Amino acid sequence: MKQEHYPDMVEGRQPVLECLRSGQAVNQLYVAQGSNQGSIRQIIQLAREQNIVVKEVPRSVLDSMSQTHNHQGVIAYISPIQYIELDDLLALNKPPYYLVLAGIEDPHNLGSLIRSAEACGFSGVIIPKRRATAVTPVVVKASAGAAAHLPIVRVTNLTAALKQLQDAGCWIVGADMDGQVCYEQDLRGPIALVIGSEGSGLPRLIKDNCDLLVRIPLYGAIESFNAAVAGGILMYEIQRQNHTPK
Amino acid sequence: MKQEHYPDMVEGRQPVLECLRSGQAVNQLYVAQGSNQGSIRQIIQLAREQNIVVKEVPRSVLDSMSQTHNHQGVIAYISPIQYIELDDLLALNKPPYYLVLAGIEDPHNLGSLIRSAEACGFSGVIIPKRRATAVTPVVVKASAGAAAHLPIVRVTNLTAALKQLQDAGCWIVGADMDGQVCYEQDLRGPIALVIGSEGSGLPRLIKDNCDLLVRIPLYGAIESFNAAVAGGILMYEIQRQNHTPK
Repeated sequence: MKQEHYPDMVEGRQPVLECLRSGQAVNQLYVAQGSNQGSIRQIIQLAREQNIVVKEVPRSVLDSMSQTHNHQGVIAYISPIQYIELDDLLALNKPPYYLVLAGIEDPHNLGSLIRSAEACGFSGVIIPKRRATAVTPVVVKASAGAAAHLPIVRVTNLTAALKQLQDAGCWIVGADMDGQVCYEQDLRGPIALVIGSEGSGLPRLIKDNCDLLVRIPLYGAIESFNAAVAGGILMYEIQRQNHTPK
Repeated sequence: MKQEHYPDMVEGRQPVLECLRSGQAVNQLYVAQGSNQGSIRQIIQLAREQNIVVKEVPRSVLDSMSQTHNHQGVIAYISPIQYIELDDLLALNKPPYYLVLAGIEDPHNLGSLIRSAEACGFSGVIIPKRRATAVTPVVVKASAGAAAHLPIVRVTNLTAALKQLQDAGCWIVGADMDGQVCYEQDLRGPIALVIGSEGSGLPRLIKDNCDLLVRIPLYGAIESFNAAVAGGILMYEIQRQNHTPK
């Protein structure tokens, strides 16, 4: 994951504890290795209850991250946006087009994908909590502001989220090089489009849970598009089909 | 333009002079303000003959750019690729799909656009010498290597280049928010697709020289796609139409 400047950092036991108690969205929590006493124990417990990713790192790592030089063994990264739950997103009853990102690591790609999703009239973006970039200030900027008004869901279990989208009537369409040519498939109607990570595409388990795999035809030597471009093309294709007669 | 690390820098009078004499492609030449004596004069003359952009900057700027701390008032940025002339590109007689970029400033966007052009089977990319990023090492990396085997042309006069493409039988199609819906237009046959800059789109003069303006429909609050995504979608649309019956 790329290094980024982080204006939204909370350091120290009391500030982090208050932050967790207030329900403020936290992207990630860093705790010094071996510390699980007193308020740190309480912090870890609260974070776990809220399904926040807790990373134990050597104290020297916290020292180099720290801006106040008084982190007391704990640093929290606050989210610039308020995430929404998948249940709540589905309950909004918006047009049934969702973008599921299975492990985008580059914040510029994530921002660009959120921007394209909003521009294409998609109703929400679902991202995983682990092994992916969260919505950081860099992502919000790269999204041209779209991240501020498109609902974004962070889930612990992506497979369970796909099942829930399926139960809500969505067709799960994954982007995969071994899939069918996208414009030869009927992509009309409720869809959750799944895009894999930059390096390795869709994880096996996610692929197995897709109803359909599609690919963008390639005519050169390059074996793939940039993940943000691929996502943009497929969302465009879905809307093109939905706005033209069969 | 973003700051980038530059491994391909040549400093000092004799090295730069040799570099220009050898015909090595130079992206840009920086010369200390007020120096036009002896070999510097010769360097500027050679650069002008080769249509290389020469920037006069205060000596302190050269000092801060310098890696050897012995720049002698001149620094050249060498291109990691060999550019090709538009005549030579057209003479290759490849499929008549060209991408014209009228002022892309972000090297990641330029790299991504070159990658998409190659993946979509386009035969070359045309970029301007001024007010745009050149093909730097960052661009080559962002292109996933595509910049190394897709012909790239750098032109001094973009309008003249459009005229030349038109004379070669290309339909000049510009991406513009006030254009026609792209998938409702017939985009089959020889095309030069023109994409504007990130901030301000197509310049007036370029727009006036297009045969057709097209837009990607928007369904959200965001008023545009990222330039690299927009280019990717339009190149995809062109190839989709060329590969499906009317």
